[in-house]
Amino acid sequence: MSNATGRKPIRWGLVGGGRDSQIGEAHRIAARLDNRFALTAGALDIDPQRGRAFATELGIAPERAYGTWRDMLAGERDRTDGLGLVTVATPNATHFEIAAAFLEAGFPVLVEKPMTMTVAEAEALQAMAQKSGRLLAVNFGYTGYPLVRQARAMVQEGDLGAIRVVVAEFAHGFHADAADADNARIRWRYDPAQAGASAVLADAGIHALHMIGYVTDQTIRRLSADFRSCLAGRLLEDDALLALDYSGGAVGRLWTSAVAVGQMHGLSIRIFGEKGGLRWAQEQPNQLYWTPLGAATRILERGAPGLYPDAAAASRLAIGHAEGLPVAFANLYRDIADAIDAGSTAPPDLPLAAAGLEMARAVEAAARSAADGGRWMTL
Amino acid sequence: MSNATGRKPIRWGLVGGGRDSQIGEAHRIAARLDNRFALTAGALDIDPQRGRAFATELGIAPERAYGTWRDMLAGERDRTDGLGLVTVATPNATHFEIAAAFLEAGFPVLVEKPMTMTVAEAEALQAMAQKSGRLLAVNFGYTGYPLVRQARAMVQEGDLGAIRVVVAEFAHGFHADAADADNARIRWRYDPAQAGASAVLADAGIHALHMIGYVTDQTIRRLSADFRSCLAGRLLEDDALLALDYSGGAVGRLWTSAVAVGQMHGLSIRIFGEKGGLRWAQEQPNQLYWTPLGAATRILERGAPGLYPDAAAASRLAIGHAEGLPVAFANLYRDIADAIDAGSTAPPDLPLAAAGLEMARAVEAAARSAADGGRWMTL
Amino acid sequence: MSNATGRKPIRWGLVGGGRDSQIGEAHRIAARLDNRFALTAGALDIDPQRGRAFATELGIAPERAYGTWRDMLAGERDRTDGLGLVTVATPNATHFEIAAAFLEAGFPVLVEKPMTMTVAEAEALQAMAQKSGRLLAVNFGYTGYPLVRQARAMVQEGDLGAIRVVVAEFAHGFHADAADADNARIRWRYDPAQAGASAVLADAGIHALHMIGYVTDQTIRRLSADFRSCLAGRLLEDDALLALDYSGGAVGRLWTSAVAVGQMHGLSIRIFGEKGGLRWAQEQPNQLYWTPLGAATRILERGAPGLYPDAAAASRLAIGHAEGLPVAFANLYRDIADAIDAGSTAPPDLPLAAAGLEMARAVEAAARSAADGGRWMTL
Amino acid sequence: MSNATGRKPIRWGLVGGGRDSQIGEAHRIAARLDNRFALTAGALDIDPQRGRAFATELGIAPERAYGTWRDMLAGERDRTDGLGLVTVATPNATHFEIAAAFLEAGFPVLVEKPMTMTVAEAEALQAMAQKSGRLLAVNFGYTGYPLVRQARAMVQEGDLGAIRVVVAEFAHGFHADAADADNARIRWRYDPAQAGASAVLADAGIHALHMIGYVTDQTIRRLSADFRSCLAGRLLEDDALLALDYSGGAVGRLWTSAVAVGQMHGLSIRIFGEKGGLRWAQEQPNQLYWTPLGAATRILERGAPGLYPDAAAASRLAIGHAEGLPVAFANLYRDIADAIDAGSTAPPDLPLAAAGLEMARAVEAAARSAADGGRWMTL
Repeated sequence: MSNATGRKPIRWGLVGGGRDSQIGEAHRIAARLDNRFALTAGALDIDPQRGRAFATELGIAPERAYGTWRDMLAGERDRTDGLGLVTVATPNATHFEIAAAFLEAGFPVLVEKPMTMTVAEAEALQAMAQKSGRLLAVNFGYTGYPLVRQARAMVQEGDLGAIRVVVAEFAHGFHADAADADNARIRWRYDPAQAGASAVLADAGIHALHMIGYVTDQTIRRLSADFRSCLAGRLLEDDALLALDYSGGAVGRLWTSAVAVGQMHGLSIRIFGEKGGLRWAQEQPNQLYWTPLGAATRILERGAPGLYPDAAAASRLAIGHAEGLPVAFANLYRDIADAIDAGSTAPPDLPLAAAGLEMARAVEAAARSAADGGRWMTL
Repeated sequence: MSNATGRKPIRWGLVGGGRDSQIGEAHRIAARLDNRFALTAGALDIDPQRGRAFATELGIAPERAYGTWRDMLAGERDRTDGLGLVTVATPNATHFEIAAAFLEAGFPVLVEKPMTMTVAEAEALQAMAQKSGRLLAVNFGYTGYPLVRQARAMVQEGDLGAIRVVVAEFAHGFHADAADADNARIRWRYDPAQAGASAVLADAGIHALHMIGYVTDQTIRRLSADFRSCLAGRLLEDDALLALDYSGGAVGRLWTSAVAVGQMHGLSIRIFGEKGGLRWAQEQPNQLYWTPLGAATRILERGAPGLYPDAAAASRLAIGHAEGLPVAFANLYRDIADAIDAGSTAPPDLPLAAAGLEMARAVEAAARSAADGGRWMTL
Repeated sequence: MSNATGRKPIRWGLVGGGRDSQIGEAHRIAARLDNRFALTAGALDIDPQRGRAFATELGIAPERAYGTWRDMLAGERDRTDGLGLVTVATPNATHFEIAAAFLEAGFPVLVEKPMTMTVAEAEALQAMAQKSGRLLAVNFGYTGYPLVRQARAMVQEGDLGAIRVVVAEFAHGFHADAADADNARIRWRYDPAQAGASAVLADAGIHALHMIGYVTDQTIRRLSADFRSCLAGRLLEDDALLALDYSGGAVGRLWTSAVAVGQMHGLSIRIFGEKGGLRWAQEQPNQLYWTPLGAATRILERGAPGLYPDAAAASRLAIGHAEGLPVAFANLYRDIADAIDAGSTAPPDLPLAAAGLEMARAVEAAARSAADGGRWMTL
Repeated sequence: MSNATGRKPIRWGLVGGGRDSQIGEAHRIAARLDNRFALTAGALDIDPQRGRAFATELGIAPERAYGTWRDMLAGERDRTDGLGLVTVATPNATHFEIAAAFLEAGFPVLVEKPMTMTVAEAEALQAMAQKSGRLLAVNFGYTGYPLVRQARAMVQEGDLGAIRVVVAEFAHGFHADAADADNARIRWRYDPAQAGASAVLADAGIHALHMIGYVTDQTIRRLSADFRSCLAGRLLEDDALLALDYSGGAVGRLWTSAVAVGQMHGLSIRIFGEKGGLRWAQEQPNQLYWTPLGAATRILERGAPGLYPDAAAASRLAIGHAEGLPVAFANLYRDIADAIDAGSTAPPDLPLAAAGLEMARAVEAAARSAADGGRWMTL
């Protein structure tokens, strides 16, 4: 589990993720945790001056502290000491344009979720990635948790038999206050002009939705959705329920909400197969509950002997020490580093453009289904 | 909280609930726990001889230990020391006929859920109860938990503001074994000829569905359902997902399953309103989690000072002592005894024919919706 | 698991347990739950008139509703329809005298814990019980929990190998408020004149201490104690820590407190042996956590297949339905009924005079040890 | 919460922490997480060649990849681009010598716990630190958890009133297997020649012991201990119980064990004061349970609004995202960096030589107490 590789850290560029950005900080911690990346260039803020100042504080050399992503692209494009990875952590509506531009210029890219705003963009971006021969990863960061990887491995190894039902949730209550009607930080999320076809599903539920596919290795065939806007004046949904059919026969049930007061970051998944069941929750990520059919439930601890190699490799500390999202997220960066070092554009454990495209299609289909009385939509 | 009333126990008759019946034992414990009922007559088994023998062992006088419910009806009908309550705990398909017969003969009746097999029967039974002027209660036993009553009182008192979303589950994994395909104890439940239009929703999910209405005091306006039969050869659903609209504006999300390996008796409810959220789970019934909007979650303990009177009255023991379903169930019997003593046919906290009818309509509507691609059905 | 026996309920007398007594209500529920006892006589209150009135309300015939326990003894002593069991649930200081009197008169007795105030009394009472040939049980009611019996059976069957360490707690916070200094309901507990040599250990910790012996089937050889009075003016301890040596080589660690704000009824036990560990907590009594050496922790559910017969027999409801203290407590009454019916004075699962005496010795030794700087005391 | 400072990372040297060392990896992650340190020099392994090779893989320049700590001291002592911090993560018995040497040479030092093997060494080291005017921190890494800092702040702010009782544990079961008698990785820990006066207390329990003082800001006045060696052939304790008196009047209860099968990394603390109680457990570190006297328990979430500044500053991610030990540990490194940058040798939140010395004294006193029948020892 050591982070020693003998290689130099990969030069890394960051677009977005300014001083007040939670996700920017999370990316920097994740990229740095295993010493596989060195933050080398950045266009961190919509305000060029603020972005350059912050970049400098972060230790980026002044000439690579850019005011805009276009400047960054221009400045980095032809360097001999070029970037090995560019992360795009800007507002959702800009993902497509920026990711496309860097991909086209030959940079491997990690883009925040949602990958794009529309299916058409997602298709275009995937095509561009294929054409470029560069890695395009999407930051479904919860997939880096060791016990999520254990669950995935258990499904792949057949420990649960054929999967029948998967129940996933991502519910929080941080958009529940009616007094926030005019809170700019929240309001844009429910404005179709800025957020697209979906709010809470595209923003939060998408993690749960992606995880169903990640753990089962199945893709969505069709779905039915119910969207609700619980707060007056909201045009997009703040609560949604989905039923899904998967390629391998699994049935999905997904609930997501932003008005679930008392839920913090309620990402959880339960997987039920012919031979057993699993349950895991992001808020207590170091335990995976496994019930073999007809037997007592067992608590699998992160770091325990006997876990599958993917789970073991994703741990940093000995059993019993709490690990959290920073390590999970760092696992994605490590997977990316491994892929870059190996010249691979299709590392098996990493969410890629195909996943980003599938999620875009699912969100769009869900919005159409919800608008049409829950009619089943085929993806 | 004392069980002293100074009244003689009400003479109680039981139909069904033979030696191997879990639910019969549960009824006897519940009826006896507060000394408000004395088991006086019974027709306990489909096998008359076995039923009479068991009744005698239970202390029923031989002349009131009947071989069939018809014999019981005939024998009890004109006694001067007649029964004050008859409980019907027979197979579901017989509920209507037996409950109707005893109601017609003037006996108050408690019938196991589901109240009837069809909506038509439910309507007829409700009409009969109204005409008879006798109490007709339905055993949604989980409503007797003190903290369920606390939740109901909190909603009624406005502690949560208008209710936006309610998420309820009742999931278990005891019908998940493909090897049970020929297990007679399980198979009939998935046979439309014996079980009617629905399996897991009518049998298990109905408790969660009822609880949404019980806690919010709202009725179902319309619903959409997805039914799945995960095991080969099953005609009825063993997994279902429902979206619902309620009379007071609440949105319901309900998942129920019989193939959820690792879930034991996973009845839980989460209620999200304008001013806060609540969550409660039957497997840990002595705590209710309350999150006021914008504040830390609080753990309300059964028996704690400050709970609403309905919750306080439903407790038997001091705070911190685990109470379970036997006490919850006994609360229904105590409510019935209070109603009978008071001559009331509409005690406010007790599930009555109206609830039984609403559930019948909901189950039927759900089956139709599921058969029609999840089309929304108005009740 | 049915409660049918074909026998008439045993006539039961209750001393103490008046209208406001929690423990009286708990005894009545427990005795009634399986229909093995019929409350037939009682002297329920220190106020004779109040006691008789309450007894009548409970359905006791007026001539057997006594004003004092002496009247009850006199009245019941020579009846041909005599009592089959007398429960003593009076203030602790009166246990000895009352239990002794009824035992001497030939009645089987269940006495609340602590059995007596002193070791001398405990020895005398045990001797009296032996001489009388009557059952003398002590109400360590938590031993009736199905999963406590599972733990005991697992130890007996060797599933854990030799027991090394047992860690037990009984901590609550209900005597933590300095404002209660003059609260009569609390103050007497810390007054040596009324409470004897120990407060929280004798009152609460004793349950945890007894449970160590019950589960391991070992007796205390020696102990060391630290007693603290955290509230000004208290003469007896409201917080105690004990180290213990047991007859079979187990080491005990016990913490008990009445000032642990936030602990409700924190009775828990953890048992660590050569081959595995167990943990159980009274506030979540339907799960037992078992970790075989070198393997994942397993959650044993009450009612699950595969539990030992003692655990299975102590359950009333199917797996997943919460059961609580009323059922646990009823198991003691059922064990007593079985013993009485069988003419046994030494049923294996029931806490008897020997346990009451051992606890008296332990409490006394702990008080002496605490007064002597924690010196180890041999029992 | 951003990790931007505009300063260059501090040059950091590591002694110990070779390829298979869990703790070495943990230090590197912690030091790197906020980009405040750059690993610049190291003597990582008892095997010089292996150590140099690993150092190179970690990106240390070959000329600063040393074979021994003495070489490192010699090589680093007079550099102009000298180290700003040296971490000592070697076997316990070498801490004193190495830390002393680097301190004396003018380097700030972070030493793994236990700081030294003996009280005499601890006193000498503290004196040396004072004389050198350099920072000497001790790695009680669990003190970096945000909610531990919240607990500390709540005590300091008086939210709990005067502290009465603190109950702490650190129990695991990883030395419970009798088959490990000859396992070299475990055996040395119980050998006085290598481990000193104490095994599980000095190794694991010390974290719980330190945390009592950290959270309450009180020091140990006296203690009584019971040590047990549960496995045949062990000379040092693998299970211990301590009672303690603190400078501010708090009473401590501490249990630690290495034979507690089923406990993973069971570090927990419960603090009971006049005005309320707190509980926190390392295995679920993102929640702190607070019970104000007479009120319902509240769940304080890491990252929630309203936490004290120290707790808020110690978080990296938004509420609801699990954080674990890597972040906690990184907080110590960040505190060290802040202190170094500020020229402070006494940052208030950081465990320093005084804490290391107090722990050494406590462990030694506990061993003497245990050897003397639990006699109370004054520190």
